[in-house]
Parts: sequence; structure tokens; C-alpha cells
Amino acid sequence: MLIHGHPTRTIWPAADGAVEIIDQTRLPHAVEIVRLTGLADAVRAITDMLVRGAPLIGATAGWGLALALREDASDAGLARAVSALAASRPTAINLAWALERVRARVSPLPASERAAAAAAEAAAIADEDVAMCRSIGEHGADLIAEAARRAGVRRVNVLTHCNAGWLATVDWGTALAPIYVAQERGIDLHVWVDETRPRNQGAALTAFELGQQGVAHTVIADNTGGHLMQHGMVDLCIVGADRVTRTGDAANKIGTYLKALAAADNGVDFHVAMPSSTIDWRLRDGVREIPIEQRGGEEVTRMRGALPSGEIVEVQVAAPGSPAANYGFDVTPARLVTSLITERGVCPASEAGILGLFPERSAA
Amino acid sequence: MLIHGHPTRTIWPAADGAVEIIDQTRLPHAVEIVRLTGLADAVRAITDMLVRGAPLIGATAGWGLALALREDASDAGLARAVSALAASRPTAINLAWALERVRARVSPLPASERAAAAAAEAAAIADEDVAMCRSIGEHGADLIAEAARRAGVRRVNVLTHCNAGWLATVDWGTALAPIYVAQERGIDLHVWVDETRPRNQGAALTAFELGQQGVAHTVIADNTGGHLMQHGMVDLCIVGADRVTRTGDAANKIGTYLKALAAADNGVDFHVAMPSSTIDWRLRDGVREIPIEQRGGEEVTRMRGALPSGEIVEVQVAAPGSPAANYGFDVTPARLVTSLITERGVCPASEAGILGLFPERSAA
Repeated sequence: MLIHGHPTRTIWPAADGAVEIIDQTRLPHAVEIVRLTGLADAVRAITDMLVRGAPLIGATAGWGLALALREDASDAGLARAVSALAASRPTAINLAWALERVRARVSPLPASERAAAAAAEAAAIADEDVAMCRSIGEHGADLIAEAARRAGVRRVNVLTHCNAGWLATVDWGTALAPIYVAQERGIDLHVWVDETRPRNQGAALTAFELGQQGVAHTVIADNTGGHLMQHGMVDLCIVGADRVTRTGDAANKIGTYLKALAAADNGVDFHVAMPSSTIDWRLRDGVREIPIEQRGGEEVTRMRGALPSGEIVEVQVAAPGSPAANYGFDVTPARLVTSLITERGVCPASEAGILGLFPERSAA
Repeated sequence: MLIHGHPTRTIWPAADGAVEIIDQTRLPHAVEIVRLTGLADAVRAITDMLVRGAPLIGATAGWGLALALREDASDAGLARAVSALAASRPTAINLAWALERVRARVSPLPASERAAAAAAEAAAIADEDVAMCRSIGEHGADLIAEAARRAGVRRVNVLTHCNAGWLATVDWGTALAPIYVAQERGIDLHVWVDETRPRNQGAALTAFELGQQGVAHTVIADNTGGHLMQHGMVDLCIVGADRVTRTGDAANKIGTYLKALAAADNGVDFHVAMPSSTIDWRLRDGVREIPIEQRGGEEVTRMRGALPSGEIVEVQVAAPGSPAANYGFDVTPARLVTSLITERGVCPASEAGILGLFPERSAA
């Protein structure tokens, strides 16, 4: 999508075999490109959230394996790299999926061929992700078009949480892809952007994306969505997911569950958009089974932002000395999800609904 | 309650007839006393939220009228002051209540006696508020004691939103008074403190209060409460209210409704603590009838905090150029409220429940 009017992806190979990414911790205040040249760079990029979002984490892990194999292509080196990358963000299922795919591709090969094959596989993962997100966008845009028809003459209002936009993928995004495709189709829409504390990915990244793309939007505190829905100011919600059970429970950024409750209480459709690689086919009870990452409390007690001079600083916002807890995700039970939007189409958030789109998984 | 170990109120008369307050916009980073010497000071203190919280706004409005009458004690001056103060925060019902009480007390008097009578009435409002909050604390502590008995050997966990502590009243607080009284009674408790964006009154003020008082607490992003309730980590919620209908609908800081939905979804008790002066006896449908204040979007896109040097600055946290909406309150329907905690006792959040405690209102 666009940055300063130029089409850009979030990760791409450089001519010398290194990999380049946008440092998303500097957005929206600065657009900075970072070069990854080895395993340690890739692990750091994921752990420190220079890249974030399940699909982009997956692509970065795939390329991270390629970078690691340039350093040590032995079986032991491969195993070490897989385990270091797997531990860099425990909740993201795409990460494990991408690692396994690249590992399976390269492990039968002689060591001398592994790095190049891993890079090719990572590039294929990236290209497939772009196609998949575009497809999610097409299917999701149909739901927005339907809501626009119901809205009549007024513009359609979409609420989203966190950043499941193109910055969270390789391009297009998951929850935002339907919005971009709807914009292409000429649908008059407006997006309520949840700020998404504690890391502010909504106010910082989703608002940045939408602004760059020229989509009408308004940033709101995470507390606001319930009030808007009580007053008919939201036509539908579309969020992403980091992991979905085979029964349709969806783990996504902390606070998603609260918006789903408000949507259900006010008869607003609540959709989860994600590639099928996000589905963890082994799990049936998301609240009980999906592990929830805890991060440092200083992400809650401090906040990063730009001074009028442009300098980026961190300020203490909580009472000095008060401890904070920082759960990264919550789980929205399937009963609160109207439908899942996948690359194959839209389905109810239930085992039967999911298997209707993915019949090859019925035996599992 | 305590600041640096010294018992303090939030508003008090100075020897020279001026009134002193704590500038709450400087908390938790600095404790600064501000003198109010005239009507304009009082209006500014309320509008700019140097004082906030329905009961403290009411007391400040009462004293503001006294200050105004020192400047102009004519009937026209009285009317002008009442209307200026009434417009300073439209949602807070206590403000209108306190103004009417002082106005009724002074309007029959000759101009020369009005200022002193208004000051005496404001002092009486303040003292009555302290007694009322203490009483709310006693009744609410009974609910915490009951939850503690159910919790057994582990400590009881209370979740609260925004700041309905002593800083929002003259002393003790409303939602936090039960916590302070429970602490006095030796109950082992821990408080989850919602940060409460956009103005961070939870992380800044509630955490400050609890820390000064030695109550165990943890600050969380507003997005977190649903996850905690899904996992049995909250025994009860206690929040304040800015306006309650005679049917039990409660307007409180934006985001309260989302926590009430999560509490209902997880079988967690959700209590609203407030003095009966918060009840607007004319209203029956809170979502439709209670006007919701909108504030400037820059409270969402920027954030105030302290640099490591101690300097308090404002930083841009949202994408530059993105607009923001800022609704100050939402309404929690009575069906989601387990009970109201008032100075007269605890009652169901329904017209019958409320009238059971306030039978003199049955005719209204």
C-alpha cells in the first residue's frame, strides 16, 4: 500500500541477501528502514516488535531462518534457529507455521543449498500472503457493501481494533483489506480506529495507514466503542486474529473481547478477518487453551510519543511506583463472532462453519 | 485521606475567604495547591478539570458561588454566576444540585449577607459529602467482606474504572470508599486499576491514592478487564457514577459500560457507588436521555506525562493529522448493574430497589 504516495511492502529482500523491514516502533512519527543480516537481527525484530502482526511475523520468521542458514547451515544450526525464532513471540501461530514450512523445505537439502532455498521459500510465503490478504479483502468488502446497502444514503461506519492492516502483513492487511477493497469499489465509508492501549497500534499504525491511503477515519479511546454502538454509530466491526480455534474462538489484541460483547449487546455484526494459517486445528476452547503472552508493565505505565520538536520520547503516565500488568491478548468466544473472513470466503464462527470452507480438515 | 502521610481534603477555605484546591491535572507527578479567589477561577477549575468527580465538582460550584457573591452579590450577579457555573460541566448533576442549594439559601437574604451565607452553605455541603462518602464506604465494605468470604484464603480482587476516590470527592471517595473501609477492617484486598483513557484518571489518580494509602493495586490498560474476568481474577467491580436515572441506569466515565458487559458475561458482581444526589429523578432511560459531553480530540491524540527529568510534557501519540473523537461518558443500563451503593445502604439497580431506600421519592 501507500507510504507518501509510493506502493510499499512491509518486508523485502535486498540485493545482497539481507532483508529489509520498516521499523514499526518508529511509526507514525518516522518511516525508517532496518536491515536484517542474521538470526539475531530477525529474533530482535520480532521480540522488540519492529515487525508485528501474525502474517508479517510469519514472513519475518521465514526470512530469519534463511538469514540464520547463511551463518550456519548445519542440522544443529537449523534446529537452533528454529527454536530461537519460535520463542520470539509465543502466541503467534503463524510464526510456528512459517518456520515449519521453511524447515521442511530445506532440511532434506545439502547444507550448501539450504540458505538459498529458505530465502526462496520465504519469498513465496510473502507473495502468497499478499494474494491471500487481497482475497480476504474481496470477501470482506462484500460484507461492507451489504452494510452500506442497509445504511442507505449515509456512509457506512466500520470499527476496528489494533492494527490488522497492511503493516501487520506483507501487504493489504487482514481486517483492513476489506476496507481498502471497499474503497476501491467506491463505497463511502468511515472507520472508527480504537487507539489500542498499551502499545497504541490503532492510533499510531491503523490511523497512519488509513491517512496515507485517504480513507476517512476517527481515532477513539478503547473505552468508546460501546457508547458508539449504543447510539447506532457503528454498522459493523472487523478485527484481525492472532490465533483462532477450530471452533471459532479468536485470540486477538487485548480488548477485542470487550468490543465483541458490545457488538452482541447492540446487534452489530462482529467479523474476524484472518488467513486460514491462523487457525490452530488442535484447539477447541480458546479461553482455556490459548496461551496469553504477558509483557512488561512499563508499556502500561509509560507511553512513547513525539514532542513538538519531533523528538520521540517516553513519558511516565501512571503514578510513580504503581505496578502494572500487561496481558497482550484476550479471547473472544465464537458465540460473539458473526463470521470469519478467510481467503476462501466468509463462514460462521463455528466448527461446522469453518469445516464448510475447509472440508479437508474434517478428519482432524 | 493521606498525601505523603498527612490527612488532606480536596477543597478547603483559606483564612482570607479564598478557597484552596489540589490541582489534579498535575497529579500524580506533582502535588500543587491552587487558590480560587473569584468566579472565573472556579469556572476554570471545573472546566479545565483541576477538580473533577461529581461530588467535588458540586462542592467547588458551591464555593464558586460564594466567591462570585464577594464580587457581585446582586440578584443579576447571582443569576450570572449560577449560569456560568452550571455550564462549566454539563453532564454532572451534582453541580446543578449544589448550585440550586446555595442559590436557594442565599437568594432571600440581603446582598450584604449573601457571600458569607454561601460560604457557610458550601462548607456544609463539603462536610455532608465527607459523612456521606464514609457511609457509602461502610455499606460497600460489607459487599467486599462478603466477596472476601467467598474468595476464602486468597485475597479478594476488586476492579475499578476511572477515579471515584477521595480526589473525586471532598474525602473518602465513592467507589474507593468501600476499599478504604475494607482496608481499615483488615480485609486482604487487591485493586485492578483501569488506566481510563483518554485522561488516565485511573493510572494517574486512583493508583496515586491507593499507593499513598498503602492499598495493594495493579494498573491495567482499559482493554484488560474482560480477560481478567474470563479467568476468575476479579471478584467484584465497583465504579462511581456521574448521573443515575430513577430506574438505575448509570452514566459514568466512558468505558464503564464495556466492563459491566464483561462482568455480566462472567458472573462477576458489578456495583455502582454514588451519593443519592447523583440520582436524576426525572430520567427513566439513561442511554436515550443523559446528555454525553464531548471534549477535544487532542486529549486522545496527545498524552501528558513526565520525562525522566521530572518535566511534565505532552506528546503526540496518534498518527499526525488523524482526527479523534472524545466522548466523556457512557451509560451502563441498569440490567448490567448488580447493585447501587448509596449513603443509605445497598439496593438493586431498579426503580423499585431505589425507591425502597428513598421512599420519599415515590410520589415523583
